[in-house]
Amino acid sequence: MSAASARGRRARVLRLATTGPQDVAPLAGAIDRGEIDPATIVAIVGKTEGNGCVNDFTRGYATLTLKLLLAERLGCPMAEVEGRVAIVMSGGTEGGLSPHLLVFCRETAPDGGAAAGPRLAIGIGLTPAFKPEEIGRNAQIAATAEAVKAAMRDAGIASPADAHFVQIKCPLLTKERIEEAARRGATVATGDTYHSMALSRGASALGVALALGEIRDAPESAVCRDWSLRSGVASTSAGVELLRNEIVVLGNGAGWAGDLVIDHAVMSDAIDADAARAVRERLGGELVAVLAKAEASPSGEIRGRRHTMLDDSDIHSTRHARALVGGVLAGVFGDTMLYVSGGAEHQGPPGGGPVAVIGKVR
Amino acid sequence: MSAASARGRRARVLRLATTGPQDVAPLAGAIDRGEIDPATIVAIVGKTEGNGCVNDFTRGYATLTLKLLLAERLGCPMAEVEGRVAIVMSGGTEGGLSPHLLVFCRETAPDGGAAAGPRLAIGIGLTPAFKPEEIGRNAQIAATAEAVKAAMRDAGIASPADAHFVQIKCPLLTKERIEEAARRGATVATGDTYHSMALSRGASALGVALALGEIRDAPESAVCRDWSLRSGVASTSAGVELLRNEIVVLGNGAGWAGDLVIDHAVMSDAIDADAARAVRERLGGELVAVLAKAEASPSGEIRGRRHTMLDDSDIHSTRHARALVGGVLAGVFGDTMLYVSGGAEHQGPPGGGPVAVIGKVR
Amino acid sequence: MSAASARGRRARVLRLATTGPQDVAPLAGAIDRGEIDPATIVAIVGKTEGNGCVNDFTRGYATLTLKLLLAERLGCPMAEVEGRVAIVMSGGTEGGLSPHLLVFCRETAPDGGAAAGPRLAIGIGLTPAFKPEEIGRNAQIAATAEAVKAAMRDAGIASPADAHFVQIKCPLLTKERIEEAARRGATVATGDTYHSMALSRGASALGVALALGEIRDAPESAVCRDWSLRSGVASTSAGVELLRNEIVVLGNGAGWAGDLVIDHAVMSDAIDADAARAVRERLGGELVAVLAKAEASPSGEIRGRRHTMLDDSDIHSTRHARALVGGVLAGVFGDTMLYVSGGAEHQGPPGGGPVAVIGKVR
Amino acid sequence: MSAASARGRRARVLRLATTGPQDVAPLAGAIDRGEIDPATIVAIVGKTEGNGCVNDFTRGYATLTLKLLLAERLGCPMAEVEGRVAIVMSGGTEGGLSPHLLVFCRETAPDGGAAAGPRLAIGIGLTPAFKPEEIGRNAQIAATAEAVKAAMRDAGIASPADAHFVQIKCPLLTKERIEEAARRGATVATGDTYHSMALSRGASALGVALALGEIRDAPESAVCRDWSLRSGVASTSAGVELLRNEIVVLGNGAGWAGDLVIDHAVMSDAIDADAARAVRERLGGELVAVLAKAEASPSGEIRGRRHTMLDDSDIHSTRHARALVGGVLAGVFGDTMLYVSGGAEHQGPPGGGPVAVIGKVR
Repeated sequence: MSAASARGRRARVLRLATTGPQDVAPLAGAIDRGEIDPATIVAIVGKTEGNGCVNDFTRGYATLTLKLLLAERLGCPMAEVEGRVAIVMSGGTEGGLSPHLLVFCRETAPDGGAAAGPRLAIGIGLTPAFKPEEIGRNAQIAATAEAVKAAMRDAGIASPADAHFVQIKCPLLTKERIEEAARRGATVATGDTYHSMALSRGASALGVALALGEIRDAPESAVCRDWSLRSGVASTSAGVELLRNEIVVLGNGAGWAGDLVIDHAVMSDAIDADAARAVRERLGGELVAVLAKAEASPSGEIRGRRHTMLDDSDIHSTRHARALVGGVLAGVFGDTMLYVSGGAEHQGPPGGGPVAVIGKVR
Repeated sequence: MSAASARGRRARVLRLATTGPQDVAPLAGAIDRGEIDPATIVAIVGKTEGNGCVNDFTRGYATLTLKLLLAERLGCPMAEVEGRVAIVMSGGTEGGLSPHLLVFCRETAPDGGAAAGPRLAIGIGLTPAFKPEEIGRNAQIAATAEAVKAAMRDAGIASPADAHFVQIKCPLLTKERIEEAARRGATVATGDTYHSMALSRGASALGVALALGEIRDAPESAVCRDWSLRSGVASTSAGVELLRNEIVVLGNGAGWAGDLVIDHAVMSDAIDADAARAVRERLGGELVAVLAKAEASPSGEIRGRRHTMLDDSDIHSTRHARALVGGVLAGVFGDTMLYVSGGAEHQGPPGGGPVAVIGKVR
Repeated sequence: MSAASARGRRARVLRLATTGPQDVAPLAGAIDRGEIDPATIVAIVGKTEGNGCVNDFTRGYATLTLKLLLAERLGCPMAEVEGRVAIVMSGGTEGGLSPHLLVFCRETAPDGGAAAGPRLAIGIGLTPAFKPEEIGRNAQIAATAEAVKAAMRDAGIASPADAHFVQIKCPLLTKERIEEAARRGATVATGDTYHSMALSRGASALGVALALGEIRDAPESAVCRDWSLRSGVASTSAGVELLRNEIVVLGNGAGWAGDLVIDHAVMSDAIDADAARAVRERLGGELVAVLAKAEASPSGEIRGRRHTMLDDSDIHSTRHARALVGGVLAGVFGDTMLYVSGGAEHQGPPGGGPVAVIGKVR
Repeated sequence: MSAASARGRRARVLRLATTGPQDVAPLAGAIDRGEIDPATIVAIVGKTEGNGCVNDFTRGYATLTLKLLLAERLGCPMAEVEGRVAIVMSGGTEGGLSPHLLVFCRETAPDGGAAAGPRLAIGIGLTPAFKPEEIGRNAQIAATAEAVKAAMRDAGIASPADAHFVQIKCPLLTKERIEEAARRGATVATGDTYHSMALSRGASALGVALALGEIRDAPESAVCRDWSLRSGVASTSAGVELLRNEIVVLGNGAGWAGDLVIDHAVMSDAIDADAARAVRERLGGELVAVLAKAEASPSGEIRGRRHTMLDDSDIHSTRHARALVGGVLAGVFGDTMLYVSGGAEHQGPPGGGPVAVIGKVR
């Protein structure tokens, strides 16, 4: 889609509470009441109440139920839904986080609806499916960078400075995938399925940083090793239910109508409430959605205080980190319906991460 | 101890990071360097990195290692340490919470050390040991109320308005204790060992509310049922390693010297950062310690948003709640070395709880 | 269905390994290769790899994917599938248990296929949907007893002695269901969602015992209290994804053709390998399926040895119990593809439970 | 100690149930009743009810309480106890496993007490403390092999064929230890604290295999990689509370009196009940103790059936494996008071492990 065609578009974001991973009733209701046209939905980003780790089946379950609903409402096969809508479910609602869906629509703006300034713009990109041995490696970094650039063109976002959040759903390794590669004589980046989630998230984030010019070079040896390489807007989430990277770029663009804008900050550590508060104050208007990344600081400390997330064999560190950052942000925004996704490798500084806010213009 | 004898006293609070439940090296160091006299220690309140639930042995482990150290440094048997120092370990450092000890000392103030106004005052109280069938019932409520009053007299805190935090360690039921009662023909309040922690915390909190005049009557039928009955300063924590209630009252009192003061607020829900921020601003000076309670709101919602803490069979709700409130408060105080204790039954409103801050006078 | 109509029937049981809750490929393959006619499937019983507790969404996910497959292969709406096939997913593959599906078919026997003796017979029964306040109470007990009798008639199983396993899927209480009842002024049997699973399983098992004449009376006050009341063949499993009881009766019946037979024993405790070995030896032929129940002995002991299942706040006791009984039975049968379902309230003696084996006639 | 000096010795083994990691009352009772002389205790091996993973503090807690008891009863400082008694606590009583202590004593045999044949012999060995960067590497392998040989000489066990169980407690890496090494410019074998437990267990097992001639060479590159290298009698257990390897060799030796003998088998996989049953039948007499190792088969399968232990992010695979093997062995021995220790790297074949039984001579 050319930048020209972006004229006359309008972004819509619905934030819908769910009662479980299978709950599509709120979305069905919005469609049935005519609030949104299902054909305009380009992405759905959501939080589900699984563990957010390897054996989290709530992501696949929610994705399946959404595809079923959309296939029915659109009158098309489920396979076609996959080509039309990027569905990115992130598991884990630890602490007070509230399960919900963010439904992103690209509508045609009504005549005369030209906005006074840049407005929320949404772009979509997809990589090809990765082989198990490509996950966490150069192939994933490079393909992601290409797809991010394509998504920015799709959104009509001209400058990297106008891209405020790049959400990516990426694959992970399972026992079966590792063995499939082994049968072909291929070696995967790690034999630890849980660690493969980190590598996939890390390689994807480096792809974003490359595409946006935040870094010049992203060698595969840097993945989950050289933390100086990072993106301030990448948000990557690994799931067992897909093999390619699905990308949603959110930014502000000319030629988009409506009353939504987006801004972001980089939290320097997990408890950097000031960064989040600053975005909220810059943005001002009614809050529409908050998207953030969380991770346990790899140093084992937060502002010089020891944390226990990395030595806990009962609860994975990503679960602790989501609960923590969810608490910090809930204190700032007065709301627990926050998209906080775990595993912030190369997404902001070690232990910190990006937080983006979508609001209405004042 | 009479109010008169309170003259010439000074409260000291050391906040010491630990590297595990067995780590008494920082306290040993402070004693060995002459920073504190072990004979002045009246209470130690700490966070340990267990699960904070029934099978959390880190509380007993930390308590044992502290008793060993104090017995050695004081040159007395371990049993005598128990009579001198109230040791209250709270398990669970979920999210970013940092394991630490708060060591409370009552020193003799140097001559001429009279403070310009009320200063931090510390009082100690103990109930008799409870039988299993008394836990969560009238006997525990009444004995706690008596012991709180005794602790206030001990501290020279004249008015309930000057009591800002009443920390209680209380017992729980185990399979063995329930069976011991059954052999005597006695029936316990619950057969569910995890639930017994809630009942014990709840009855203890009602005892505080009675003692401070926050409520007039606390029938045993109200325990963990009538949430309108509550205390704004109680903080109760259940552990397997004791059978009585151990009580530490913190407040401001005349006749205490030094530069420490305490204040508190009641968080109306788990994300009430404003309440915490207000205390911090009222207090102003250097932060010395933060103590707070956390619980999953029993309604299943926070400000109208669903939370998943009560339906999670992998991680107990008290663990989620500590992580959440720890995040909210870390965002406010810029520090994760916070005493956040789970299970706030009758401690503040449902889903909320007290937060107390000790600081230096400006 | 009359006993007469049972003539000419043949039971088939397929045991299919799955790679996850969403994996219907093995069943699709069996249908597509013509091994089974999907129209003959009357029940699917399976193990999925969730936690088997309140927030186990793998049961609903597996059930949805099976319904989708069957609706497509049968060319009927999904709602019709629910009326045709009882789908009973049990979560939890702790220890070595291997996720799988048991597909039960009722085929028309080929002419001249009369068996030399009784053969595996399958009957299906359904109760009406229960209101939240009926779960764990008289209404559930009575309706279950009726439905079990109907299922036995459906199977042409004349005598209770020929019924060897009665599998029931029953509902549980969630926060939402409890609140819905409260809005109508109704009080539910428990406010603890996890405990509601036990009450629902217990009431359902008492319904089986009543139907089979194992007990004469089953007052609601006995549910999860009077362990002397029990069934030696009931196997009940609670799930969030349904509101009624779905019943599958397995026994041996005249008039059924084929080469399958079933037998069972009651394990007197969780480690009663002898009971399981005896069934295996009585049955003799090739092993087709094993179905068993597991629970932590409520006494806290197994043969006088303390177990820690009931005091563990990290892993629920049902998870420990499945792992344990799965290990005992894997040692006996040399196979981990076992249907071991947790929560054996009133199903066999406290801490024990039924184990049924389907095999080929020698 | 020379073989000659072994004459006149007698091994004693007490199996004592505990009510928690702090419970030394049964051992104190045995000492106080004169059943055993504390000066004869050379090793205590036990199961405690922690998670058996990185943050399992029950091992250290139990070890401390045992040292306190022995120091008091022996009238010596705690540091001297460490030199006299090898204390090896293994965390994790999943499934039905029952917490207990095995107390190994070396007594002087009464005159005329010469046994008719070889009897249980106990030898002790210790390595020096390891630096963090030596864990899981050559230094640990070589030092362990030396210490095992010393322990065999200590026991008077002449031939490797007479060594039936070599129990080793070995250290692990923590965040702090890794950082300490980094400050010295040293690189540790892994940055993953949980994985460090596997490497330490693996290197220690290879040391046993070397010492007993089961393998000729054990390069550090084989640790947790080349599963063809292994010992049939090693049992290694990692814990945070020590830095050296502590070794207890159990075998049958001439010159030992008493009525105890030991035998062992290697389970070919986790459900190899036949191997355990064969040992039990060979041994015959009264059962005194069972010691075994457990691990999730790294192939992801047991006898061709998929297991889910390695993809479970809620419960670590070592916990699943202990529950499973504990169930298999409880079915064989009719007892849950079994020492089943997790993590069987290079201890028996992948997914299997050694099982040793101590019994009374018939």
